[in-house]
Amino acid sequence: MTGDDSAAGSGPVLRPIDDLKVTALGGGHGLFNTLTALRFLTADVTAVVTVADDGGSSGRLRAELGLIPPGDLRMALAALMAAPAALEARRRVDPASAARHERWARMLQHRFGGYGALAGHPIGNLLLSGLNEVTGDVVEALDDLIDLFDVDGRVLPMALVPLVIEADVSGLEKDPRVSRVIRGQVAVATTPGKPRRVRLIPDSPAGCAEAAAAILDADVVTLGPGSWFSSVIPHVLVPDQLAALSETSARKMLFVNLAAEPGETTGFSVERHLHVLHAHAPTLRVDDVVVDSASVPEGLERDHLERAAGRFGAQLRVADLAVPGTATHDPVKTAATVVGLID
Amino acid sequence: MTGDDSAAGSGPVLRPIDDLKVTALGGGHGLFNTLTALRFLTADVTAVVTVADDGGSSGRLRAELGLIPPGDLRMALAALMAAPAALEARRRVDPASAARHERWARMLQHRFGGYGALAGHPIGNLLLSGLNEVTGDVVEALDDLIDLFDVDGRVLPMALVPLVIEADVSGLEKDPRVSRVIRGQVAVATTPGKPRRVRLIPDSPAGCAEAAAAILDADVVTLGPGSWFSSVIPHVLVPDQLAALSETSARKMLFVNLAAEPGETTGFSVERHLHVLHAHAPTLRVDDVVVDSASVPEGLERDHLERAAGRFGAQLRVADLAVPGTATHDPVKTAATVVGLID
Repeated sequence: MTGDDSAAGSGPVLRPIDDLKVTALGGGHGLFNTLTALRFLTADVTAVVTVADDGGSSGRLRAELGLIPPGDLRMALAALMAAPAALEARRRVDPASAARHERWARMLQHRFGGYGALAGHPIGNLLLSGLNEVTGDVVEALDDLIDLFDVDGRVLPMALVPLVIEADVSGLEKDPRVSRVIRGQVAVATTPGKPRRVRLIPDSPAGCAEAAAAILDADVVTLGPGSWFSSVIPHVLVPDQLAALSETSARKMLFVNLAAEPGETTGFSVERHLHVLHAHAPTLRVDDVVVDSASVPEGLERDHLERAAGRFGAQLRVADLAVPGTATHDPVKTAATVVGLID
Repeated sequence: MTGDDSAAGSGPVLRPIDDLKVTALGGGHGLFNTLTALRFLTADVTAVVTVADDGGSSGRLRAELGLIPPGDLRMALAALMAAPAALEARRRVDPASAARHERWARMLQHRFGGYGALAGHPIGNLLLSGLNEVTGDVVEALDDLIDLFDVDGRVLPMALVPLVIEADVSGLEKDPRVSRVIRGQVAVATTPGKPRRVRLIPDSPAGCAEAAAAILDADVVTLGPGSWFSSVIPHVLVPDQLAALSETSARKMLFVNLAAEPGETTGFSVERHLHVLHAHAPTLRVDDVVVDSASVPEGLERDHLERAAGRFGAQLRVADLAVPGTATHDPVKTAATVVGLID
């Protein structure tokens, strides 16, 4: 494997790394960004996606059809298809094929307008749900779409049944010691209280065999960033997946969010992100805890952070990761950081 | 052009005819069958499809989104994709590609189950409507699907706006001379009365330029079979299309239904089918009026039928066309008849 993250012009120049296999765990916009980053480095990217969404189009489809909520899966697929032309040029991808992927990704993401039964449903959600209904197998349906759109990589669900997220949340009552049970991804993600612990329903669901295999087979596995309680922690609550993470010889990188999210992680420090993840999966080991330089304090607090990373057996890795002025990971900087770590 | 319709085993053996271009006008199941037949002969088939459906999924989508009803277009696309393995073997098509087309055609035709907002919508209707909404251009959306599924041929709408069919129907009142106006494809197709005349709303709609070009450019143009008032006659009520039919040097073949349909053509003889079409487009000329041998009477009535064909400047062509025991055109027999006519 060879990498090149030397600075040139406005940012690092990235070249693909031969034969690099990466498996990325997450959900929603966080995973979308990570996948966009990883596509700079390799075409061999497997996305493993949370399947607990109960909001918006996914929530409606899930309630109506009883199928895996398609939204986060669709977004991951679009991430593997769409890329700014500049990125494609750097990877020397055929421009016609890149334009075609870009166009179909836009189609998949397009939401129906109007005020009717379809309003708000992205085309890709309907297509994936339909294929899932026909095949009776969400992995087969996803592979069909990968084949149809001739996409490099793969998208897999974290589990084969729709999951519900339930959280013990404090701060909703006058007495701060009292905690209440809040159920549903949207409710947890937007609670004005403080989630302490999340569970999956059904508890300890069977994982997706192909996802576990992709974790075992990877050179690099990434976890996060993303909505911490509803998109990141759920991955370590699937026993098959936690076992695969423990067994794999892949380099494991945990990407911590650049900022606390209003709702589920209001006021969370980086250290607290690490603490709650560790509390949910004390056996989880990773190699790198990757944190944005702006969120790392100096002195004693940095020592605490290194100690928190140490609970995962990990090194703290501090890098410039943000799109300036935002709490979003910059895909080029993220990719460069991955290259720096594996070099 | 070379053809081979020699009998072998249970039916004629068909071989593709080099460079044959066919444009098929119709709608619904009739067009589906014709397209299946034509695919024995050539990959260069353009379907031109009525866009006046207001029933079922198409009706719901049309009402909700204000777009061209997708159902007949989807069926035509599926017809260009799906074919029994035996047909593919005769055309010596790559079996993997045939299986892939077959699979995706089945997906496009699959209707959502359940009891919710999506129930009954074929996946292909949602996909086509979504693409139509994104592109704002139904021809572009159809070409996108042809490209995506790597389908030979093309599917085009008869007009670029959704159309309404309106009919003057007699026999609904006690006095048989009184006629009433019935509006909507479903209402016309299922009326217990006798339609006398149909109109399109808007009247004399602009045709699809690509459809007119495909008529002009074809070696063979077929019209029918299909629901006579709601899928066949509408094609000659689009002035651009009637003009293209008059201008083209293609061999024009009119396929008459094998039997009267309950509803709009209850009790219709073959001759009456020809009369009502002629009444709607007195300038229409075709080369062949193709009729199943079982529906052709002997003696005087056959003379009448030849005279009715003569009004289109056509020869009456009588052939064995039916799937035995049904009122459905057999694709192999239909294809063999087309070959026989152009040889």
